[in-house]
Amino acid sequence: MKKLINNPENVVEEMIDGYVKAHPSYVRRLAENDRSLVSSMETKVDKVGILIGGGSGHEPAFMGYVGAGMADGVAVGNIFASPPPAPILEVTKAINKGAGVLYLYGNYAGDVMNFGMAADLAEMEEIQVEMVLASDDVASAPKEEKDRRRGIAGEFFVYKTAGAAADFGYKLEEVARVARQTNENTRSMGVGLSPCSLPQTGEPSFELGENEMEVGLGHHGEPGIRKAQIESADKVADELLANIFGDMTLNKGDDVAVLVNGLGSTPRMELYIMFRRVEQVLKEKGINIYRSYVGDYITSLEMGGCSITLTKLDDELKKMIDHPVDCPMFVQK
Amino acid sequence: MKKLINNPENVVEEMIDGYVKAHPSYVRRLAENDRSLVSSMETKVDKVGILIGGGSGHEPAFMGYVGAGMADGVAVGNIFASPPPAPILEVTKAINKGAGVLYLYGNYAGDVMNFGMAADLAEMEEIQVEMVLASDDVASAPKEEKDRRRGIAGEFFVYKTAGAAADFGYKLEEVARVARQTNENTRSMGVGLSPCSLPQTGEPSFELGENEMEVGLGHHGEPGIRKAQIESADKVADELLANIFGDMTLNKGDDVAVLVNGLGSTPRMELYIMFRRVEQVLKEKGINIYRSYVGDYITSLEMGGCSITLTKLDDELKKMIDHPVDCPMFVQK
Repeated sequence: MKKLINNPENVVEEMIDGYVKAHPSYVRRLAENDRSLVSSMETKVDKVGILIGGGSGHEPAFMGYVGAGMADGVAVGNIFASPPPAPILEVTKAINKGAGVLYLYGNYAGDVMNFGMAADLAEMEEIQVEMVLASDDVASAPKEEKDRRRGIAGEFFVYKTAGAAADFGYKLEEVARVARQTNENTRSMGVGLSPCSLPQTGEPSFELGENEMEVGLGHHGEPGIRKAQIESADKVADELLANIFGDMTLNKGDDVAVLVNGLGSTPRMELYIMFRRVEQVLKEKGINIYRSYVGDYITSLEMGGCSITLTKLDDELKKMIDHPVDCPMFVQK
Repeated sequence: MKKLINNPENVVEEMIDGYVKAHPSYVRRLAENDRSLVSSMETKVDKVGILIGGGSGHEPAFMGYVGAGMADGVAVGNIFASPPPAPILEVTKAINKGAGVLYLYGNYAGDVMNFGMAADLAEMEEIQVEMVLASDDVASAPKEEKDRRRGIAGEFFVYKTAGAAADFGYKLEEVARVARQTNENTRSMGVGLSPCSLPQTGEPSFELGENEMEVGLGHHGEPGIRKAQIESADKVADELLANIFGDMTLNKGDDVAVLVNGLGSTPRMELYIMFRRVEQVLKEKGINIYRSYVGDYITSLEMGGCSITLTKLDDELKKMIDHPVDCPMFVQK
């Protein structure tokens, strides 16, 4: 796989360098760790700090969501690898305004360990920290073991609602409650069509036959629930939705936010063809689409495929979903 | 190339169907032509109508730019093919508020013919029409033959400034002047790393060796100025910039808008690494980056590669670049 890079060892530093130079009014680097970024925007006094992070290669996640109405800071890891505790702690200190900091990250072993250690260190410095893990991928573990499930694109909605709650001046435990409720109400499932390759190795992240797809694929190429011959967009959407519906309670008249997320190389044309089917199926069930997001929100370099996410919305979550956002890679009026 | 589609003959209709269902508050279909879309938003009385369009497969271009602050309507063609005059005319009639309509499109034979015919038909119905063609690709023809040059990603800045001028209440000839000035001040050049494939044929849009790149590639896979072994991001950026600088007058202290545009499957990581070099080179030359755009703005399905665009800004163009936009695939606060 050809790449527009310089030294493969420097891709993360050079990406961050380009990023902060492209968006200086949004984001700046902290002093001690090259991979600690915080919002350049004025923060309200007493606002709960929202800290996100994880491995690189998922852009716009995670650094693209630092700005107004979402995250205040981000710790950036190596490609597909958790950031260590040091940059997480540095961001924590920078964004704590006395109201505490909420860590939002996906349910991956490395992240759980590193964010947990950073939280312990922050508490030793008397900064109050809460953590909410995204675990929306229904294909990653059975329903009874939801706390083993990994987070995929549904994390975007957790950032969206928690970021809004913090902006509205909610206290730390309340922002955490909104984030947990969002994760609780969110289900996702993905399909992989083609792998990505890591700059350091050039090796594909997984193997698929010429006409094969991986149903239930994870964001780092983790295996799903089955390999199969590729089918029509409508059939693929139906299978993903059937798994999602089987895992959450949605009744006629319920409101949902929908995200059809591209994994990197899938054209928006295909994402909208997938969305078309999602809308048809939801309409048949009498479920109302409150807001739609279609595009690349959490990617895996140039991986091919997409995921579907549904989040059930109550009145509070609707208010959070509607709240404006101004970040370098995501703006909502 | 695997695709998430249904019948390949229906990809454009199904994409549009998904699109209007995902963004009903932004965009709606007109009655006569499935491929005539106009903004659902309230338009100011006497505002000049901005009509954009071209082939499909370039999403977010063109339909993603219909909304507030950019285009009022779009005529959607087949993949990489111009829309015929009928949908262009229907959109023209729908968005004309008595102040006339400005057509903005790229300099391609099919578009020139079809938009020209639609303009003739509109004038027979006493609708005043002006046309501005984007011709920013320095690799597509020599400097002396600028009117033979094709439009690539620099078109985005033409939509941006003309959309703002129309929003500010400029008259038709003034909006057209702003659009022409923007095109005049804009230079782009691209590099291709891998082809896309059309849903109907499945055939790659061009051929490249395993380690080859196409310097100066066009948006439909048109050949550039040379094939070469792929080089580092910095060297590729330097070559594209050298061609751009050789074609426009930029002096120390000048302000530019920069666009690093992904062609479809190139990760944002690589686009930011390219931007990093653009910033370094501009800084060395004492040229000030007024605003940066990095991402997928005008794509070619899943083509690999990117382009660099520079637009020299005077005070009027800065005002236009700063104007807020609210479209389904592009929002600027």
